[in-house]
Amino acid sequence: MYTPNKRTQAELNRVQAIIKKELASEKIIQEIYEYIFTAEGKKTRALISLLSSQTSMTSSETKVGVVLKNQERVRLASVIELLHTATLVHDDVVDESELRRGNKSVNQVWTNSYSVLIGDFIYSKAFILMVKLNNSEILDELAKATNDIAKGEIIQLELFENKQLIQLKDLLKVSYLKTGRLFEASAKTGAMLARRSKKEIKTFGLLGKALGTAFQIQDDILDYEALKMDTGKPAMKDYKEGKMTFPLFFAMQNAKPKDRKFIMENFGKEKISKKDLIKIYQLIQNEGAQQKTNALLEKYTQETKAHLNNLKHLPCYNEMLNLITLSKTRKI
Amino acid sequence: MYTPNKRTQAELNRVQAIIKKELASEKIIQEIYEYIFTAEGKKTRALISLLSSQTSMTSSETKVGVVLKNQERVRLASVIELLHTATLVHDDVVDESELRRGNKSVNQVWTNSYSVLIGDFIYSKAFILMVKLNNSEILDELAKATNDIAKGEIIQLELFENKQLIQLKDLLKVSYLKTGRLFEASAKTGAMLARRSKKEIKTFGLLGKALGTAFQIQDDILDYEALKMDTGKPAMKDYKEGKMTFPLFFAMQNAKPKDRKFIMENFGKEKISKKDLIKIYQLIQNEGAQQKTNALLEKYTQETKAHLNNLKHLPCYNEMLNLITLSKTRKI
Repeated sequence: MYTPNKRTQAELNRVQAIIKKELASEKIIQEIYEYIFTAEGKKTRALISLLSSQTSMTSSETKVGVVLKNQERVRLASVIELLHTATLVHDDVVDESELRRGNKSVNQVWTNSYSVLIGDFIYSKAFILMVKLNNSEILDELAKATNDIAKGEIIQLELFENKQLIQLKDLLKVSYLKTGRLFEASAKTGAMLARRSKKEIKTFGLLGKALGTAFQIQDDILDYEALKMDTGKPAMKDYKEGKMTFPLFFAMQNAKPKDRKFIMENFGKEKISKKDLIKIYQLIQNEGAQQKTNALLEKYTQETKAHLNNLKHLPCYNEMLNLITLSKTRKI
Repeated sequence: MYTPNKRTQAELNRVQAIIKKELASEKIIQEIYEYIFTAEGKKTRALISLLSSQTSMTSSETKVGVVLKNQERVRLASVIELLHTATLVHDDVVDESELRRGNKSVNQVWTNSYSVLIGDFIYSKAFILMVKLNNSEILDELAKATNDIAKGEIIQLELFENKQLIQLKDLLKVSYLKTGRLFEASAKTGAMLARRSKKEIKTFGLLGKALGTAFQIQDDILDYEALKMDTGKPAMKDYKEGKMTFPLFFAMQNAKPKDRKFIMENFGKEKISKKDLIKIYQLIQNEGAQQKTNALLEKYTQETKAHLNNLKHLPCYNEMLNLITLSKTRKI
């Protein structure tokens, strides 16, 4: 499991403090805020942005300049984390989720109406904070990423509701828009803030995109693995919500017709007997399907590393390599 | 009923064309887009922004300069209309509305999930377009207005759900945040785009705020009046949704205890017999209560005009005066 170094951890703590300050103005929002953030997330996107915007202090820079720059770096990371949080809150309505990060989700406790409005409140807070960065290139990238995330969710909803024959390229497209896109924007805008070259900004973007897809594949794997592990995370949530993910996709390709029929009959059902759930789990976790999913994860991890190889000269190299390597071993 | 002059109408048509272009990229969004905009709205907010940003062409300006400026004016008006549309789409989830502008609402046709995501899609489109204006003062104002709208909706939800004793100042606060705030931002950012003086920008803001409150009071009145008029708009929607508005507030103050009890017993009920609905309508539309509501509307209309009086020297004066005077006579 990856843990940030001391400097980065201190910056992540500042991100947390900013988010708290921004959201805790109205009493009702404060209550919900505390609820959302009781189980503090991993803040992977904030972390990527912090690493991408890291610069080594050169002798020509004044201390004041460095302090100001660090303020902006932490602000950008906070904006990105707020955007991500807003999408999570709205996702809860879309997925009709009962659980998020092991806690009851906002919409279960405060109804769908609150979830929609709290999501909007957080989005707009992110934009207010973003405007303060006064960098139209960064604003443009983040506004576009936010739009792409919504687009990805809409496409996913349409794909799943129409029960179309889903192809690997559809799954990859949705994964990119839903997850990869914000990873990409986190890395790119971090690099933009550090005033890196056009070529470096592009490389950071590609790195983020590949890492985000790897991250999504692993999330999908963990959702099934939660059944045998005791992470506190509800198991096979994606399956119960009727959400097609990489492990299920490959399992369906590999399964015998009889098993495929059984998997599809229960797909999207909220209540499945423990016995049936274990049977489905075993069908989906069959060796051939697991190999294919892992190979895809490996492909995107290698792609991420290949892009990082072009950034060896930068101060964030070692920590970014740790993040990429160790995020593969994460259990939550 | 107010109708814009030829120039302004042409600009409103361009706003409509921009909105269509921005939203009709993905097929699924296009379908929903056409649904939302079948009953084209009044575009009052876009109109206010267009009037506030109007400048007379001076001899020192080149034609190219004027064309560019008009492009920006239309873009700003489109951004504002997109923001408003996004709030309408999310409101449908919050209100669990069955009807919006006489048509079935998005969430009835495409489920709540689509409404949430389409709303997010439209919000982020507005921000992408907004960034192109490259004016951080305008960006800041619009991001803050969007945040205040969400805050207003949250406060309203809390006020109504807790069945607290609502006071006039609460109703006025919610009206300001939900409606007045975007009117204020429309007028202010229009004036900012036209590079008006700080004093003029402030006056435009105050004008917009007062006009927005007047607009909300009238919306509340029209919701009850729809019962006797044949506007195609569903009648007493606010009452059926359990939404406290100005006419109901004053009627409760005036009503006898027995009548007050009857009004409250049915408040928030979806199904009310035609007979009971007419009885409630008559109780709420009693003379004393109507006088108080109309007096409040008149107060904010006069306040709007007083602010406009300080802008007599500007080219938008006559059209703005028409808008204020004639919007009082609107039936939809």
